[in-house]
Amino acid sequence: MNFLEERIQRDGIVKEGNVLKVDSFLNHQMDIALFQQMGAEFKKRFAGQPINKILTIEASGIGIACIVAEQFHVPVVFAKKSKSINIDGDMYVAEVESFTHKTKNQVIVSRKFLTPEDHVLIIDDFLANGCALQGLISIVSQAGGTVEGIGIAIEKGFQTGGQVIRNLGYHLESLAIVESMDTATGKIVFREQ
Amino acid sequence: MNFLEERIQRDGIVKEGNVLKVDSFLNHQMDIALFQQMGAEFKKRFAGQPINKILTIEASGIGIACIVAEQFHVPVVFAKKSKSINIDGDMYVAEVESFTHKTKNQVIVSRKFLTPEDHVLIIDDFLANGCALQGLISIVSQAGGTVEGIGIAIEKGFQTGGQVIRNLGYHLESLAIVESMDTATGKIVFREQ
Repeated sequence: MNFLEERIQRDGIVKEGNVLKVDSFLNHQMDIALFQQMGAEFKKRFAGQPINKILTIEASGIGIACIVAEQFHVPVVFAKKSKSINIDGDMYVAEVESFTHKTKNQVIVSRKFLTPEDHVLIIDDFLANGCALQGLISIVSQAGGTVEGIGIAIEKGFQTGGQVIRNLGYHLESLAIVESMDTATGKIVFREQ
Repeated sequence: MNFLEERIQRDGIVKEGNVLKVDSFLNHQMDIALFQQMGAEFKKRFAGQPINKILTIEASGIGIACIVAEQFHVPVVFAKKSKSINIDGDMYVAEVESFTHKTKNQVIVSRKFLTPEDHVLIIDDFLANGCALQGLISIVSQAGGTVEGIGIAIEKGFQTGGQVIRNLGYHLESLAIVESMDTATGKIVFREQ
């Protein structure tokens, strides 16, 4: 097991409905030293890629993205979630439909901050069905930019998001891929990488 | 002028209604090297304080807080904004009324992540009327913790938030305090510190 898998094993809590709570170190309270390890690992996995910008989505992607960005010496842009339909023309907009919540949301990024010259690393904390990620990819594509890679902390390997993204040919790296979780025993099985 | 004031002067845009747009480096696109300078400056200004945790609020406070946390070697907790009234008992809740938007929102933090042992540095990007900040202080207080200091990137000195917080005796450090802005000329005047 790598450092993140060990941490999930130790401090993650498996809840009903395939929920994995990691709010003590990843997405409510944030362990910055752990994020630094994640940054170093992503730097290794995306070595040699011409990355000049990191894109993430509010709120829980932001902290990880900023610490990862220190490794790449690039700025971070975070996409905003919006329910409003009155977006002015200065924004890229992606409609994101959540399979889980059966809701539609908009994800927006100012046109000023993504251009055809951008080589983007997308960073997020979780990948499950991949709705948010599809929206981020759509936005880079609208800008004419290039997705050089996608770095995820925890992928739920038993949901379809990761497979779809890999099938589409994207370079997706998830630091921990959960194959299965057992609510009764709390046991978490990770995919061998 | 310090490094942040210079950057605001160069890249900030003054808009109608006392709006200062700094989305190219602070709260939509984020300049991580600038955040590192801010972190070093906050470390100086809060030197010797027994800070063991940083508290911020989603979304635009998170990036700054994480980079600042590297200087203090402490975890970050971010408060979540919620419109829902069905908060379970495991949360600290503060009602935050926005003077500007005339709306009420709830700010929530899990009880697990703030305790009477915590000595907290509050970090945020903007201080204007101080509504969000008052909510964060209330939450630390509910937890029985101690607010050791408050670090703000940009304070609007012509609004009342900063004065109220200083009157209450808190150690508030704002890296840039805007005294006045002129929409016509784009001129920004900073308070001498």
